[in-house]
Amino acid sequence: MTKHIGILTSGGDSPGLNAAIRGVGKAALDLKMHVVGFRDGFRGLMENRTTLLESGQLSGILTLGGTILGTSREKPHKMMVGGKVRDMTEVIVANYRSSHLDCLVCLGGGGTQKNALRLKQAGLNVVTLPKTIDNDVAMTDTTFGFDTALGIATEAIDRLHSTAHSHHRIIVVEIMGHRAGWLALGAGIAGGADVILIPEIPYDIKSVANAIHKRKRSGKPFSIVAVAEGAISVEEYQEIQAAPAAIKGKKAEAAEIVYADRTIRVAQQLESLTGLEARVTILGHLQRGGTPSAADRILATRLGTAAAQLIHDGHYGVMVAAHGENTVPVVLEDVAGLVKTVPVDHSWVESARRVGTNFGD
Amino acid sequence: MTKHIGILTSGGDSPGLNAAIRGVGKAALDLKMHVVGFRDGFRGLMENRTTLLESGQLSGILTLGGTILGTSREKPHKMMVGGKVRDMTEVIVANYRSSHLDCLVCLGGGGTQKNALRLKQAGLNVVTLPKTIDNDVAMTDTTFGFDTALGIATEAIDRLHSTAHSHHRIIVVEIMGHRAGWLALGAGIAGGADVILIPEIPYDIKSVANAIHKRKRSGKPFSIVAVAEGAISVEEYQEIQAAPAAIKGKKAEAAEIVYADRTIRVAQQLESLTGLEARVTILGHLQRGGTPSAADRILATRLGTAAAQLIHDGHYGVMVAAHGENTVPVVLEDVAGLVKTVPVDHSWVESARRVGTNFGD
Amino acid sequence: MTKHIGILTSGGDSPGLNAAIRGVGKAALDLKMHVVGFRDGFRGLMENRTTLLESGQLSGILTLGGTILGTSREKPHKMMVGGKVRDMTEVIVANYRSSHLDCLVCLGGGGTQKNALRLKQAGLNVVTLPKTIDNDVAMTDTTFGFDTALGIATEAIDRLHSTAHSHHRIIVVEIMGHRAGWLALGAGIAGGADVILIPEIPYDIKSVANAIHKRKRSGKPFSIVAVAEGAISVEEYQEIQAAPAAIKGKKAEAAEIVYADRTIRVAQQLESLTGLEARVTILGHLQRGGTPSAADRILATRLGTAAAQLIHDGHYGVMVAAHGENTVPVVLEDVAGLVKTVPVDHSWVESARRVGTNFGD
Amino acid sequence: MTKHIGILTSGGDSPGLNAAIRGVGKAALDLKMHVVGFRDGFRGLMENRTTLLESGQLSGILTLGGTILGTSREKPHKMMVGGKVRDMTEVIVANYRSSHLDCLVCLGGGGTQKNALRLKQAGLNVVTLPKTIDNDVAMTDTTFGFDTALGIATEAIDRLHSTAHSHHRIIVVEIMGHRAGWLALGAGIAGGADVILIPEIPYDIKSVANAIHKRKRSGKPFSIVAVAEGAISVEEYQEIQAAPAAIKGKKAEAAEIVYADRTIRVAQQLESLTGLEARVTILGHLQRGGTPSAADRILATRLGTAAAQLIHDGHYGVMVAAHGENTVPVVLEDVAGLVKTVPVDHSWVESARRVGTNFGD
Repeated sequence: MTKHIGILTSGGDSPGLNAAIRGVGKAALDLKMHVVGFRDGFRGLMENRTTLLESGQLSGILTLGGTILGTSREKPHKMMVGGKVRDMTEVIVANYRSSHLDCLVCLGGGGTQKNALRLKQAGLNVVTLPKTIDNDVAMTDTTFGFDTALGIATEAIDRLHSTAHSHHRIIVVEIMGHRAGWLALGAGIAGGADVILIPEIPYDIKSVANAIHKRKRSGKPFSIVAVAEGAISVEEYQEIQAAPAAIKGKKAEAAEIVYADRTIRVAQQLESLTGLEARVTILGHLQRGGTPSAADRILATRLGTAAAQLIHDGHYGVMVAAHGENTVPVVLEDVAGLVKTVPVDHSWVESARRVGTNFGD
Repeated sequence: MTKHIGILTSGGDSPGLNAAIRGVGKAALDLKMHVVGFRDGFRGLMENRTTLLESGQLSGILTLGGTILGTSREKPHKMMVGGKVRDMTEVIVANYRSSHLDCLVCLGGGGTQKNALRLKQAGLNVVTLPKTIDNDVAMTDTTFGFDTALGIATEAIDRLHSTAHSHHRIIVVEIMGHRAGWLALGAGIAGGADVILIPEIPYDIKSVANAIHKRKRSGKPFSIVAVAEGAISVEEYQEIQAAPAAIKGKKAEAAEIVYADRTIRVAQQLESLTGLEARVTILGHLQRGGTPSAADRILATRLGTAAAQLIHDGHYGVMVAAHGENTVPVVLEDVAGLVKTVPVDHSWVESARRVGTNFGD
Repeated sequence: MTKHIGILTSGGDSPGLNAAIRGVGKAALDLKMHVVGFRDGFRGLMENRTTLLESGQLSGILTLGGTILGTSREKPHKMMVGGKVRDMTEVIVANYRSSHLDCLVCLGGGGTQKNALRLKQAGLNVVTLPKTIDNDVAMTDTTFGFDTALGIATEAIDRLHSTAHSHHRIIVVEIMGHRAGWLALGAGIAGGADVILIPEIPYDIKSVANAIHKRKRSGKPFSIVAVAEGAISVEEYQEIQAAPAAIKGKKAEAAEIVYADRTIRVAQQLESLTGLEARVTILGHLQRGGTPSAADRILATRLGTAAAQLIHDGHYGVMVAAHGENTVPVVLEDVAGLVKTVPVDHSWVESARRVGTNFGD
Repeated sequence: MTKHIGILTSGGDSPGLNAAIRGVGKAALDLKMHVVGFRDGFRGLMENRTTLLESGQLSGILTLGGTILGTSREKPHKMMVGGKVRDMTEVIVANYRSSHLDCLVCLGGGGTQKNALRLKQAGLNVVTLPKTIDNDVAMTDTTFGFDTALGIATEAIDRLHSTAHSHHRIIVVEIMGHRAGWLALGAGIAGGADVILIPEIPYDIKSVANAIHKRKRSGKPFSIVAVAEGAISVEEYQEIQAAPAAIKGKKAEAAEIVYADRTIRVAQQLESLTGLEARVTILGHLQRGGTPSAADRILATRLGTAAAQLIHDGHYGVMVAAHGENTVPVVLEDVAGLVKTVPVDHSWVESARRVGTNFGD
């Protein structure tokens, strides 16, 4: 009997989404399934806005950035409808049933894993793929989008070296990563940043200034400081630890607004502590866009075709994870709600320290 | 008799500076001259900090971003010395004499042309090259650095299309250009921006919102808005026109601080006028750095070798301009103090309008 | 009255073709024309295979390599039909008439200009755009495709420097250009090639070997040799000069087959003359493909929109040429049959010599 | 007591070598060791040509292609000296002793692992890193250079799609890989090649032609065929299997010469079997050169710093392998002489088949 599947992309856009849609779709067609896409994430599933995915729609999209299906950050159980936030899970379940779907494939990051688990608990068959430039999804070696963003951020640091060197400046570059520092850490190592500040290692601005000062004294009056969006100072960290849960939540919500402000403050502090000029660059959405890297295309294709195979085999309720060269199904309960942060003694951190990188600690 | 020449790079760094240094230097050596570089622009000339430029120093730098000589924004007649701003022209003239220079080659933008003219008036032999990513130096077809920055800004817009399209957003991207809109105009055309705002064409935010709204109604709920740093609204423009000169100056000084703020305000206004989400990306120093494009390497090499030839021929007091395939000496008096802005009926503007670009007017 | 136009792309594919189709098409729609595309060059015109070009077809193609219309190298008056080469001009004229066209826009290189002139002489209204990575179309400053190919070939040389340097080798890199050496010359200058061989300057292999030997003696046992496809030795040149016309033609036909062979022979000769290892890289079709550069997108857009304006004004029988910042109509009779080769005293050549490049003469 | 180490790079150059030299060197300096580099691989070790590696030499090389130390393919036990091939192991051991080295670090591919083992057996302390764009070193997840080459080859395929599509052609692209097909496989998947031919899966040219024919019938008269250098037809495979060992060896030696010829023959066979035009592109040394990718820089840094730590701990005779996020020492006896080929049921192969790729079997 022909299986029917639906695909949606949810959360921030990420290079490799179209490669993954192609991977799922082509493999599903090869396995004689019928494939539809839902537009704009869970919103389109709720509103039943679909598009047929056949061979023609899946051709020529391997190299495209963004997602041909559109995406949104909306959640099934908290959706803005008629000016109010409502739980639309029942509508979604009804649409799933009326479309005679055998499985819903959700491509997204940490939030999407949680939303998919809720739909699983509501009785749907779901399979998910881990997508995010932040690389912070649990239980998988890596996520597609990360390698591309790593390349973009590294190339940006390469460019900024010119200016830092020519003008004897400190360049502070803000790199995406609210909760996990993988991208700033990776791009910092690859770009030869002199300082890397990540959420997992609270920084003392004086330690950073000392490192920069030491470089200056040794004839290098310029430095690159790679700062993850979510990097926090020791003082901020202690304040959060001390605060009751309610305050923590509030702080987290406020955080997104103030990333750039905090990065600018780092630059200002370093200017006053070192006597060098500092400049700020916020990479922002540049890190999300454009053609995926070769590695991300391969990863997205592997995970996508594996998802189709799992559905073919009737294996639902899982995220398709990358484990070395293999793909492994992980039950959603083991993934949802977890964030894969950088262990403070991770081999990348140890290696970066050995080549002289300062982490502000 | 062997001629002695000095080279310095001044103003913001720009891709192609090293290619130009190499061009001047290799051609000068070929013409049996003796070449030194001054470090960090006019500052190094004042402090007599030099480095010998021989074949070895000039090898392998063609592809490097930044400037191997370092640069600064300091001016001969207004230099910070001992905590005070002083006129150091006499010291510079003395250093030039004591180095037995026959000519000083200054690589820089509009400000550098003015400073070079002052030194010419103080009795020095000078030859300049036009360098800036802004392309706003008068009397030359183009400047090296512009083509590279154009490529970087265009690639950025390419990336931002992914996000704009996938999330149904307005993306407002700020591109360098205080006084002239060449870079935003060029990258806007090349990147297929839907709206381009440049200093030369004051914008009415309602016209912009209408254009975006019209796209939305025709099924394209996403738009890219390319904004030059110096873009101004009709209201701001009228205020500046009405204000006495003193206020104009003050505004100009304040301008650099508020570019990002203004770009953010454009995004906020468009959000409220169109009902679409807007996001801002500030490209900043990314546009200055990294390997020069092929076209910029060729241009810098051509201008550099032509400068050496002019010096060899005893032809001083000029900027080496690009006129089509040829290089032409232009006396500094005809260049200094002028800014090459975009004519409002320039062929690029006309062409962009024909493919549907809105300029906010 | 609504004008009807047809567009076709002919000859080798070249980056910027889609940008030009978009430029012509969007401007024509803006000028209230009706636009169709013919598939696969003059072949599709002869077979009347068309596609409607409306706003939707023209969106999102600015950055695409290749041509959405397809292309072929066939000529109206020598077309393979039913196994025979036939003159299909009358069929083409008939199709033009039956489609009620007011003008045919032909995007192509030197051959296309000749074919367009033939159709003009057969009574059709034609307007052409100059497209080729070779930059050898007469009467225009440049052609779209050239800047992109220049960037690709330069990046290739940048990469080959690594290997040349690490292995102490001669790397001989073949760059496109049968009749004109613009691409090899430009990429050679931009890539810092030590030797540049172009059709316009017949080379003496011993002179090349001497230059490489001199580098070796000065501690640089590696060299990059950029060779245009059509580069010829002094001996070959003399043979061609001496031969009667018939032989010349035959040689020309045979040429395409033996480019790679000749490049390989250059490498072998240099190995035996210098005692260094030599390796060959043939860039081939890589130089034609992929996303056009920013400069090519702007150029193609400018020329395309200008073509639509000329048609609107009833100005036919011309190629739209780039003259500085302007676009200028040039009557086809002044273009067809000419090849823009590199003058041996061109400013690029002079500049390259000054920085030490050997041309084999 | 201060340890003394020597570093050399051997075999074909590969992106990331300088990043690895920097990683070993900076970490070794941090661990208070004394570091020298030997020039041009084992040749320089034999001739005792060294260069001191201190902080200054290790700065700014992270992004450079090639190797600052130079490389060669010579082997300690078969070195060309005075016109004869001689075993120079004793001289090498003597140089190692007279330099008072505690360890020799060899950066190279499969051949280098074998040579390092020989020196280990001759009594030297050695540590190796796995470097090659071919990814065929045993006992490590991956090798540095591979990811960069993968990106270059993929970008090449992206470009070739333009031409294939616009001209309705078969494009046959030869990708490096004598013995293992990792690079052609990876780039083929990432570039969306329609056919991938690798040494591990002997191909039947008729199967390939059928796949291309099927595409043509479904309206896609163009195909990309990615061919590894060492790809062989079923007929060749059977011949090799049947031949005695002596012939196998001879064939292997002859192989390098005929790669391009074989790739050209594939194109010719496909032309005659499908009736479509075919064109060949040989990527060649382009795949080895230029700036390493972000992933390769991180990998090379991790392996390099781990090597220094092992030496610090007195752990010799091993290759530093990448196992997931960790680095693991593997005794050279377990690595030398092995080739990591692509298992015919590898997850990449399975995934590629699912999206419709033909492997010629």
